[in-house]
Amino acid sequence: MEISIPEVVILRLPLYLRALNLCSDEGLEIVSSRELGVKLQLTPAQIRKDLSYFGKFGKQGKGYNVKRLAGELRRILKLDREWAMALVGVGRLGRAILNYGHFSTEGFSIIAAFDTDPAQVGKKVSGLTVQNISELRPTLADRGISIGIVAVPPGEAQNMINLLVACGIQAVLNYAPIVARVPKGVRLRDIDPVTALRSVTYYLR
Amino acid sequence: MEISIPEVVILRLPLYLRALNLCSDEGLEIVSSRELGVKLQLTPAQIRKDLSYFGKFGKQGKGYNVKRLAGELRRILKLDREWAMALVGVGRLGRAILNYGHFSTEGFSIIAAFDTDPAQVGKKVSGLTVQNISELRPTLADRGISIGIVAVPPGEAQNMINLLVACGIQAVLNYAPIVARVPKGVRLRDIDPVTALRSVTYYLR
Repeated sequence: MEISIPEVVILRLPLYLRALNLCSDEGLEIVSSRELGVKLQLTPAQIRKDLSYFGKFGKQGKGYNVKRLAGELRRILKLDREWAMALVGVGRLGRAILNYGHFSTEGFSIIAAFDTDPAQVGKKVSGLTVQNISELRPTLADRGISIGIVAVPPGEAQNMINLLVACGIQAVLNYAPIVARVPKGVRLRDIDPVTALRSVTYYLR
Repeated sequence: MEISIPEVVILRLPLYLRALNLCSDEGLEIVSSRELGVKLQLTPAQIRKDLSYFGKFGKQGKGYNVKRLAGELRRILKLDREWAMALVGVGRLGRAILNYGHFSTEGFSIIAAFDTDPAQVGKKVSGLTVQNISELRPTLADRGISIGIVAVPPGEAQNMINLLVACGIQAVLNYAPIVARVPKGVRLRDIDPVTALRSVTYYLR
């Protein structure tokens, strides 16, 4: 029987992984849930509860083995493989995203780029030839692309998300400042700098 | 006596605000902590506990008045005023950020842009004249800038953050894919698409 794990727990696991990588960089081999909690601003009880969904890691009072727990989290999150992504929108933002080196080092490769503007189609950008949006469906299927990145203007973003979903995309990384909607079963993540800013102003004089 | 509020609670308030704005768009006048919890994937108890730090909103069993709670959260988060920001780095990413219309509509204005590259200095970008990084300190002070946006390559990012901090910045929005460090008292938010992606792969086939 599979236990359904709350999405909010899944959302925290990458933060655990990042904190563990930090511990590893600092040369730590063992870390307690209290120490992890300090790094993550979570209670030790919350951390233990979150991890308990996935089995037993570490012994009571002994802390977690940093490398082993990081490896387990990578496996749970399916980060032990490569993921192919398609970009929609090769304007200024889209080009900055294609230029962002951190995706591929972390196992996320943008292998196709699309635009609706005929003036962009056929151009080479960061080693990719921009394709017409009409080629979206066959390209996603043929090249095993599961994640779509949306970097079009706000007025076009929901349409492009709908199109990606209709073409079978499983997850959307949305950069447009809209409240985007996806049907159940498709995962949406927004890159939303305004929400990030709204959590700092509290602290400003 | 001021109660110190955990940062993790402050980090959630903008999400509450976004959910309330969504309720408002849907025409809802009253919302229960259970309904908010569904939107936010948090337990109703967690929501009530978070809000209890700031006083009493809504009556037991009556739900929250959507507009009033949103207004209170805006006031608590100091979003009832304008915030001035400075951008460091006017490459492809920096230009995309300057072009991003959503900041100013939400009360965050980029009013100065800096670069270390003499070839960029003096150029007009999205209505701003790019300034030499040497003008950072006087500009921040004279123009009441509290937030710095870092959009430089990873190898330069920590140096630029250090410089912003030395010049008295109170908060940093960092777009560079590094584990950035700031001293106590300075707030850091990272725009990190890889962490967002790492929480979707779990769900992909």
